[in-house]
This record gives sequence, C-alpha cells and structure tokens, in this order.
Amino acid sequence: MDRRGFVTAGMTAGLAGVSGAGGALGSLLAGVPGWGPGKTLPDGTIRLSSNENPLGLSPRARQAVIDAIPVANRYPSDAAREVEAALARQLGTTPDHVILGAGSTEVLQMAVQAYQSPHAPMVVAEPTFEDVPRYQRPFAYDMVAVPLLPDMSHDLGRMREVAEKDRRPSVVYVCNPNNPTGTVTPSAELNEWIADAPETTMFLVDEAYFEYVDDPRYTSALPLVDAHPNVIVVRTFSKIFGMAGLRLGYGVAHPGTIGRLRDFISSNNANVLASHAALASLGDQDLVARSVAVNDAAKQIAHATLDELSLEYLPTQTNFIMHRIHGDLGSYIGRMRDAGIRVGRPFPPMLGWNRVSFGLPEEMERWAETLRGFRERSWM
Amino acid sequence: MDRRGFVTAGMTAGLAGVSGAGGALGSLLAGVPGWGPGKTLPDGTIRLSSNENPLGLSPRARQAVIDAIPVANRYPSDAAREVEAALARQLGTTPDHVILGAGSTEVLQMAVQAYQSPHAPMVVAEPTFEDVPRYQRPFAYDMVAVPLLPDMSHDLGRMREVAEKDRRPSVVYVCNPNNPTGTVTPSAELNEWIADAPETTMFLVDEAYFEYVDDPRYTSALPLVDAHPNVIVVRTFSKIFGMAGLRLGYGVAHPGTIGRLRDFISSNNANVLASHAALASLGDQDLVARSVAVNDAAKQIAHATLDELSLEYLPTQTNFIMHRIHGDLGSYIGRMRDAGIRVGRPFPPMLGWNRVSFGLPEEMERWAETLRGFRERSWM
Repeated sequence: MDRRGFVTAGMTAGLAGVSGAGGALGSLLAGVPGWGPGKTLPDGTIRLSSNENPLGLSPRARQAVIDAIPVANRYPSDAAREVEAALARQLGTTPDHVILGAGSTEVLQMAVQAYQSPHAPMVVAEPTFEDVPRYQRPFAYDMVAVPLLPDMSHDLGRMREVAEKDRRPSVVYVCNPNNPTGTVTPSAELNEWIADAPETTMFLVDEAYFEYVDDPRYTSALPLVDAHPNVIVVRTFSKIFGMAGLRLGYGVAHPGTIGRLRDFISSNNANVLASHAALASLGDQDLVARSVAVNDAAKQIAHATLDELSLEYLPTQTNFIMHRIHGDLGSYIGRMRDAGIRVGRPFPPMLGWNRVSFGLPEEMERWAETLRGFRERSWM
Repeated sequence: MDRRGFVTAGMTAGLAGVSGAGGALGSLLAGVPGWGPGKTLPDGTIRLSSNENPLGLSPRARQAVIDAIPVANRYPSDAAREVEAALARQLGTTPDHVILGAGSTEVLQMAVQAYQSPHAPMVVAEPTFEDVPRYQRPFAYDMVAVPLLPDMSHDLGRMREVAEKDRRPSVVYVCNPNNPTGTVTPSAELNEWIADAPETTMFLVDEAYFEYVDDPRYTSALPLVDAHPNVIVVRTFSKIFGMAGLRLGYGVAHPGTIGRLRDFISSNNANVLASHAALASLGDQDLVARSVAVNDAAKQIAHATLDELSLEYLPTQTNFIMHRIHGDLGSYIGRMRDAGIRVGRPFPPMLGWNRVSFGLPEEMERWAETLRGFRERSWM
C-alpha cells in the first residue's frame, strides 16, 4: 500500500473547497475540538510546535477510546495483537514483520540498542530528528552527523563513506521526509545504496511523514524489508492519524530483525486505548485524505504568507515548514509565545530558521497575522 | 505517605459489609463494567490471570480520559509533568525524584540498562516477576536466580553473597511483595543490607503491590532514596488504581539516579490519557480503600474455598494468591480456560502451584465453583 492508494478514495471530496473555512473544508473542521470562528485550542494557546495533526483524533477513534474504557484495567496484549494483524493486512505483509512501539520513537530506541557495538558508526543527517542521536548517547557508538546537501536531501554518498569505512557494523538513520526540514531524499539513491550495502549496515528508515508526500521521487522503503534484513521502516500513528498523545508507532522489518528488536521492547508497551483508536483509524478509509486536505490548506496559507514577506522556505513534504527568520531565533520563539503561539524549537545548525507546524487554517491565519505584525515592528 | 495513610480515610465505609454483594460492597460494585448478578466481563471470560484490578478505572479516571480526548493529538509532556508534580506532593518529595514509565516495567527496563556492566551480577529471586530477567538478557550481566526461603521471603543473605562477591557492581531486584508468591520480605532485613551495601550495589525495589500490604513487618523503601542513590523504588498505576491497560508507572530515587535512568527513557513515554487518569485517581481519596475492600472480599472467598478443598496456599499481601493444585499445571490451566476462566501462567519452579488473581466476589464464586467441580471429577 502506498500513500496514493491510501489517499485516492477521499481525495476528491476532501480537496474541494480547501481555500476557505466554508464548503468541504468547513465540514471537515466542524467536529474539531475547540475549532470555530474566533476560537483557539481549549487552553488558549495555538500549538504549531510539534508537528501534531490539528484535526485531533478522528471521530471513530474518539468513540473507540470511549468504548474501550471498560477494559482499561486489563493488560493490553490482545488489542496490540489485533493492531499488528490489521497493519499487516493493510501493508500486505504478515504480523511477524510488524512490531509496535509506545510511539515510533520506542521502535527507534529498540533499533539503536539492538545494533550497538563498540565504535560502530551511528550515521545521521544534520539537522535531523533528535531522538536517534539521543538514544545512542549512553551506548558505545561513534556518532557522526553528516550535513544535509544544499538541496536539503541526505548526503548519502558521504554517509556511506562513514558507515562502511573499516567494514565496521554501523547504523544509518534516514528520516525521509526529514524532520525538521520537511524535505525528501530521493528514494532511488537510498535504494541503490541498500542494494549494495553489506548486511552489517543497518538502515533505520523513519517514514513518520510518509502519508503527506506527493513528490514523485519518493517511495516507501517498505518493499525492501523482505530481501534486506538490514532495513527497518518506522511509522507512526502520531501524525496523519492525529494520535501523538496516545503513543503508538510501529516498525516493519524482516521477521528475524523484528525478533532482535523484540529483545529490547518494553513489556505491554502499546496501551489499550491507543490500540483501539488505531484499529478504528485504520478502518476509516477517508481519514488520511481528510488530514492531507486540511494540511494542504494550511500549507497554502504558509506559502502565501512567506512569499508576501519574502521569507525563504524549504519545499515541504510534511505537516510543517522550515522558513527563514530575520534576527535572533530565541527572541523570535519568545515573541511568538508572547503572542499565544508556540512555534518549533531551535534545530542547530539552522539557527536562522524556524520550523512551524501546520495548524488549522484559522490558526495559520493567526500565525500569518502575527508574522506581519513582527515585520511592521521590524522584528523580521 | 504510607499505605495506612492512604487507606484510613475510606476504610470504615469501605470495609462495612464486604461479606456479600449487598450493602457497602454492593454499592462499590454498582458502577463496575460488566458486573452484576449473573454477569461476567464484556467478552464472557473471567480474567483472573494478570493481577488486574477488577473494579476497572475509577469513575473519576473514566471521566478524565473522556475529557482529555480533545488533546489526544498533542504530545503529552505537559500532562506528564503534572503527574510527576502530583506524585511528588503525595510522596513528600520533589519532581526531581520521580520518573514516569509506560508502566513500571519501563522503569525496571531503564534501570537494568543503566546499571549493566560486563559480568555484573543481576541477582533476583526464584520465582519472581519475569520482566527484569527478560530485560537483562541482551546485556552483559551474569544472571543469578536465588530460590526464595521456605517462608517465601527473599533469601537476602544468599543474594548479598552473590551481589557483593568480587566487589563487582551489581543489580539486586527485590519484588516486595513478591510476584507470583504474594509474600513479603521483612523490610528490616532489606534496610539493614542497604545500610551496609557499597554504592555499586543497585537495589531495584519493586513495590507494585505496596498498597495492598497490611503485614507490620513491611514498610516502603521510599524513605531510603535520599541517603542511598543506589536505591530505586518502582510503583505502578496498574494495580490499586486499575489502570493496567493505560501503561503508567513510576520510579522514585535520588535525583542523580533519576538522571541516569532518564538516559534510557523512551521519549514522551507517558500517554496523555493515562496521565489525566492518574491525576484524577491520585485526587480520589477513597480509591485505594475501595480497591482494598473489594480485594479483601475476594481474598476471603479464596481462603474459604482453598481451606474447604484442603489446598495449601501462601499468605498473600497482594491482589492474587498462590495455591497448590493437584496434577499437571498445564492441564489445570487448560481446564480452567475451558470453563471460561483465565488463571495465572506457570512460574517455574513452582509447577505444582497456580497463581490466581482476585476478581470481583462473583467472579471468585465462579472460580470456587469450578474448582469444586474439578475436585468432584478428581482433577484436583
């Protein structure tokens, strides 16, 4: 299953009328918690900081959470097995190829731990998602961060030199699309390396934002796992499914590799309410299209605003965008916070840039208005 | 705060009339999912297998889960910080002394990982809770399981010899009360060892069942953590608070020790619905007493039944009991399953015993009746 298969069904309905809060987009937004003309989130703050899905849990997932409350005192293994089976069916694989995590981050942690060895290079992009570098810290890796290329794709050539130097076992983390830049690395280049790599080079391919991508140079690494036990694909329910607070993600790999990851799993890691929400979400064929449609509407506002203010931005294939700011990043983040908006944290070395996550269209308008106000005060 | 402080408030009300389903116990049970005369759990099976709290989530926790659904798409760190603060207040300590886990088991896993070193002895009782032995397996520990003493307390003398031999760093796991035996190890003996032990002996004290204990020889190890950075106390919301499916537990230790554990934490591990349920549960002063009262009623039924059938059992300080069976354990578990009742798994080397978790009084009566039926067929 690729993102297009996921999306096609609901696309026509979802995309009609995305340019305003009326019409199809308005009906998508009708049930969103806290959303409505003039309203913000329940606590009054607009969170554009953490790449969350502003639509919230889908209506079916909310009902599934409520329905599962009577079994919330029971250990969750039965529900977790159902999620593995449902994922296997959707992905066209077997449950033996799937492992759940308390968020995809736990799967990343399992992999970092499972494949550590003394002076094994841990090769990551700079900047990239910080959890993998964090997880390797207490282990015996040699950590190497390779700057992104000028087009903000991973420098796979340089990463390969580092990983395969001295024929050591290594772990290569490829976040694709990359967080915090939102940019993709062409899959053909990655696949070519995987085809040639020794089995001691472990590829940890993070596809957290997979469903948002429409760049034709991008395909999932999922089809590679059977022939390549050294490829682990990591996905999440936090983004397109709007479940970041529920903590559920998964890894897909060769069954032998899954078995090795399982040595490092935390018992009963997938909570029962998240598991039932996931089952309901997987069964909701329009959910991905709805999330993509709302994200596209937010992206249009972001592009228009940044163009208007002549602020450079990176081409995004995700639910966030990285754009230039003028002046000090810490001050910028603080001023946005003072205005009731949380924007992304600093991602060194890109300290002249800010990552802003896509909220609801109305929230994006608030962000745009605030940015224009900063420009008027010459803060930008 | 000790268990008695926790319990006193609601005790008088909670314990009046525990002998039947009428009166005070009846009112405690009125809101339990699936409970009622002649009814079993929603799926028709009685689960007496996993030391779960049959009362389910408390009414306040259920409401808190529902109320938090609108933020289930947001990362949960704010709620997790609130739980740490609430725990610190109740325990009379600071948030720096507290770490959350996706279940207490994740805290056990962090500790096992944080204090591994080549040929460090990992010293546990036999039998005990299996997660710690499981977590040490992929690391470089020397695993040593020390049989319980005849009174089913930990053989601390022998464990000490193993742990402190050759002056290696070691990790000592003390599950107190112990799972699966339900028995306590006198705290004075443990505290004496801790007072004398080198700081390289790490004590991992699992108090998952703490709130159920009324044995005067038992006290929490919590007061020791400030003077002893080598003591980690682990607790859970899975048992007395009925939240096993939600995955939330915690560790309490010296802030320096907490910092070391944090190197091995999985990002955003505490899910937002669990965190809100925990806050509601901690604010419900009668919850512990209610759980204890229903547990005591179940325990009375278990004792009466086992006495009637002359089946030996261990003195329990928990929400389960270990009792003799006659014949093959696998057959026993299978026959119970055929009768619609899940009982505990095998705990080698105690293969002539079964662990049964305390359910609702009516569920215990079903278990008792089934056991009597086994006796009539000479299966017991």
